[in-house]
Amino acid sequence: MSQITTETATEIESTGTERRRRSGGRGGERTRKPAGGDRYRRLVNRLARTEVLDAEALEHIHDASLTVLEEVGMDIMLPEARARMKAAGADVKEGSDRVRFDRGLILDMIASVPSQFTLHARNPERNLAIGGNNLVFAQIASAPFVADREGGRRAGNQEDYRKLVKLAQCYDIVHCTGGYPVEPVDIHASIRHLDCLADLVLLTDKVFHCYSLGRQRNLDALEIVRIGRGISAEQLEAEPSLFTVINSSSPLRLDGPMLQGIIEMSSRNQVVIMTPFTLAGAMAPVTVAGALVQQNAEALCGIAFSQMVRRGAPVMYGGFTSNVDMKTGAPAFGTPEYMKAVMAGGQLARRYGIPYRTSNTNAANTLDAQAAYESMMSLWALTQGGGNFVLHAAGWTEGGLTASFEKFILDVDMLQMVAEFLTPLDVSPDALALDAIREVGPGGHYFGTGHTLARYESAFYAPILSDWRNFETWTEAGRPTTYDHANRIFKEKLASYERPPIDPAIEEELSTFVARRKQEGGVPTDF
Amino acid sequence: MSQITTETATEIESTGTERRRRSGGRGGERTRKPAGGDRYRRLVNRLARTEVLDAEALEHIHDASLTVLEEVGMDIMLPEARARMKAAGADVKEGSDRVRFDRGLILDMIASVPSQFTLHARNPERNLAIGGNNLVFAQIASAPFVADREGGRRAGNQEDYRKLVKLAQCYDIVHCTGGYPVEPVDIHASIRHLDCLADLVLLTDKVFHCYSLGRQRNLDALEIVRIGRGISAEQLEAEPSLFTVINSSSPLRLDGPMLQGIIEMSSRNQVVIMTPFTLAGAMAPVTVAGALVQQNAEALCGIAFSQMVRRGAPVMYGGFTSNVDMKTGAPAFGTPEYMKAVMAGGQLARRYGIPYRTSNTNAANTLDAQAAYESMMSLWALTQGGGNFVLHAAGWTEGGLTASFEKFILDVDMLQMVAEFLTPLDVSPDALALDAIREVGPGGHYFGTGHTLARYESAFYAPILSDWRNFETWTEAGRPTTYDHANRIFKEKLASYERPPIDPAIEEELSTFVARRKQEGGVPTDF
Repeated sequence: MSQITTETATEIESTGTERRRRSGGRGGERTRKPAGGDRYRRLVNRLARTEVLDAEALEHIHDASLTVLEEVGMDIMLPEARARMKAAGADVKEGSDRVRFDRGLILDMIASVPSQFTLHARNPERNLAIGGNNLVFAQIASAPFVADREGGRRAGNQEDYRKLVKLAQCYDIVHCTGGYPVEPVDIHASIRHLDCLADLVLLTDKVFHCYSLGRQRNLDALEIVRIGRGISAEQLEAEPSLFTVINSSSPLRLDGPMLQGIIEMSSRNQVVIMTPFTLAGAMAPVTVAGALVQQNAEALCGIAFSQMVRRGAPVMYGGFTSNVDMKTGAPAFGTPEYMKAVMAGGQLARRYGIPYRTSNTNAANTLDAQAAYESMMSLWALTQGGGNFVLHAAGWTEGGLTASFEKFILDVDMLQMVAEFLTPLDVSPDALALDAIREVGPGGHYFGTGHTLARYESAFYAPILSDWRNFETWTEAGRPTTYDHANRIFKEKLASYERPPIDPAIEEELSTFVARRKQEGGVPTDF
Repeated sequence: MSQITTETATEIESTGTERRRRSGGRGGERTRKPAGGDRYRRLVNRLARTEVLDAEALEHIHDASLTVLEEVGMDIMLPEARARMKAAGADVKEGSDRVRFDRGLILDMIASVPSQFTLHARNPERNLAIGGNNLVFAQIASAPFVADREGGRRAGNQEDYRKLVKLAQCYDIVHCTGGYPVEPVDIHASIRHLDCLADLVLLTDKVFHCYSLGRQRNLDALEIVRIGRGISAEQLEAEPSLFTVINSSSPLRLDGPMLQGIIEMSSRNQVVIMTPFTLAGAMAPVTVAGALVQQNAEALCGIAFSQMVRRGAPVMYGGFTSNVDMKTGAPAFGTPEYMKAVMAGGQLARRYGIPYRTSNTNAANTLDAQAAYESMMSLWALTQGGGNFVLHAAGWTEGGLTASFEKFILDVDMLQMVAEFLTPLDVSPDALALDAIREVGPGGHYFGTGHTLARYESAFYAPILSDWRNFETWTEAGRPTTYDHANRIFKEKLASYERPPIDPAIEEELSTFVARRKQEGGVPTDF
């Protein structure tokens, strides 16, 4: 199973950004020699991608999206952004938010996006290789509610926020956090980002995200990540270490804080994930192809803008196209339509050579079969579709409204199974087992052979949740379901959590910064 | 969505067997003009297959399996079979069951297997195109137990047997039955096959299976299928209309009744599905590659024997390699190892140009998340791995020990989602929706547009089970799980069951035959 680690170390070494900038440094060194026990820290997907669009169909969607940007344009809700777009050559009308983009301008701009880069964590062994064949899983982000079986579904709060962040630290398959797993509304919005980002530094040693909710929050996050890594502002600018998700307000609009986020993050060479939220039948056309046209127009617009801000800034192409339940208007996830959109999105992202962000989605209200099959369909689509960065990979349920502790465990198990699936099949002479077959012969049994005894302990993936006891034994045990097992396991895992080591000087500097910024009132709010 | 139907009709027309024998006749005509409302009757998988083995690794497994057949050989537990093998050129030792096969003999024999053929049902609209890009789903077979929520888990019986067969008739996505969905042990074994096969003719109009449990049972089944189709023995021999699953007794042994089954079925041009049951670590080497070597040796031996019986007889390559839980020895299904074995098996079957049989498996004891994720992993593997015929596609749970009514419904929903996923994405100008995007513009909404209104009723797959109500509405409804919905739906569906029409003369002939054979005592048993 060590192939995963070895291969990805190579991937990291060969990423474009690394080569271009020669900034691998400390991080680069360490990722080449990963410590033991980190079987899931680096995943490489060497399988051929599944293509749901033929070459002609792909070009139809590409062309149509460029026509949208040329003829319809986007509403760009920030004067500074419109000014930058005008300077780059876009068609900006005075007194209007509407901006139109020549296709040549878009294609020129997106050509400078790096196809691969490294996202740096405060622990270099947690650095992430983004793009190419690399596959990274990020925890759920931004749920307003949190749930476990005993506590039920409740509003997000700091205690649950911290528990979920700790769980993300516990599993190597969760490569990074992805925003606040749940929104802790018991912390005032003016200082919430300070407490939450400090927790992400202290409770984990993995890469994290900052919300683009106004310039000051971006700046605070940039300073916190700089302190956390113990580096200079110059080194931070050379080494992308923070990411932000930018959503367009579909259809065809980019709001002020989002545009500001691109400006602050891209200008400092930090990572922007440009993700339109194009629900077919609601904020996008009711056809999957039409929704993809709109997704692509919005994504390319935001990505092009990141390059207007700074050529070569790291950015990802985000796909989030799904459909709505046409009976109720409720968003649906993990559907056949979602699968096709994920795979087609991957084809578009690869056409442009831009790393591809996807999601592990479902719309279940509890941890039942639906939660599993919708998530598994999402995982199937994004694995075969070539997702590079999977947000909401662990813990997402109820269409993203709820962060579930039990679903987090279910997802960890499913993600680990994806990772095992991606591990190349060993066909060495020893694995072909001709001698064992000769030894056992017709009518024999393999349980006691030397070939089996030498391998049985690590031969197969041992699931966290699957209950493979026979019916009688399972009945004696009280007939536990996956939900029961997940409920037990998340509590056991939390009890085993250990805070990752940190330089006391860094912790002190972080504490001082957060205290000062809180004294200053954080970020003013109108409530 | 009509592409599925149209494309598969073409597939049926272009199958090798059809061309070779020019026997399309009645069946061929009708399948070209499928009736309305049969969206799921024919599935075609036009996606590129996922390959987990590179060309070299595939040859390693191929070579090793031929070495096994040459050097180790198989135990062939029927004198008549050994005599036929000897006549064909195999190395048969007097006074021993062991038979060894030169690789040239094996490769020569399997070269005459048809790569595609049609399996004929008594209703020609239910004919099945086997092989190529065609994908066929068969119901669960051979479970000793049956379960639903109210009745719990109980021994198989005729009432439940009939209910499950009726359910298979109710859904077009279940293309055929696959043996007895549950073993009705309340019917004496001497006449069980007569009652059960008559039910398969009367309660469904789909293709069915016969067990190879001695020559007489095969002969009774052949007569029942001939009567059911209302054709002559000659036409039956020209049109494969019955299939049997032949399991090797792994490792490397074929028992008497199984060999007899190949002889009776292949000699009459009926379909043999040759499926080794190679659990890695138990009846096969503990490595997936080693288990595949053994699977391939056993499968090729049985397939080659079918061609020794009759050149060109239709046969499928069955893959059923999984692993055991090394802590308990319990079989595991729907695992990452199972997925790789399914995909590698598909590569082997395609290398030989033989239709590929797979299964929709899981080892869950109830309808929880595990049942869904293990099944979905199986479906992912067999879809991307190029399965042509999927046994146990609906209703299988607990590692095949139990036929579950609720799991049947869950599987129907998941199979339909696979079918929808395989439907090509529409990228016509109308689907690209440029005019709708122009009309709505930035900041608008698509709910009320003409483009949406014209399509919303059929735009997306409407799942049977997924509960997409919001949390509050779902809570008011009593928080039903997937299990609850499936329990309700199977009862509703059973209540709506209608017996398919049948010629009264055929029904009369069938009844007379079964009565006569019962009077004769059926097939003698020693109990």
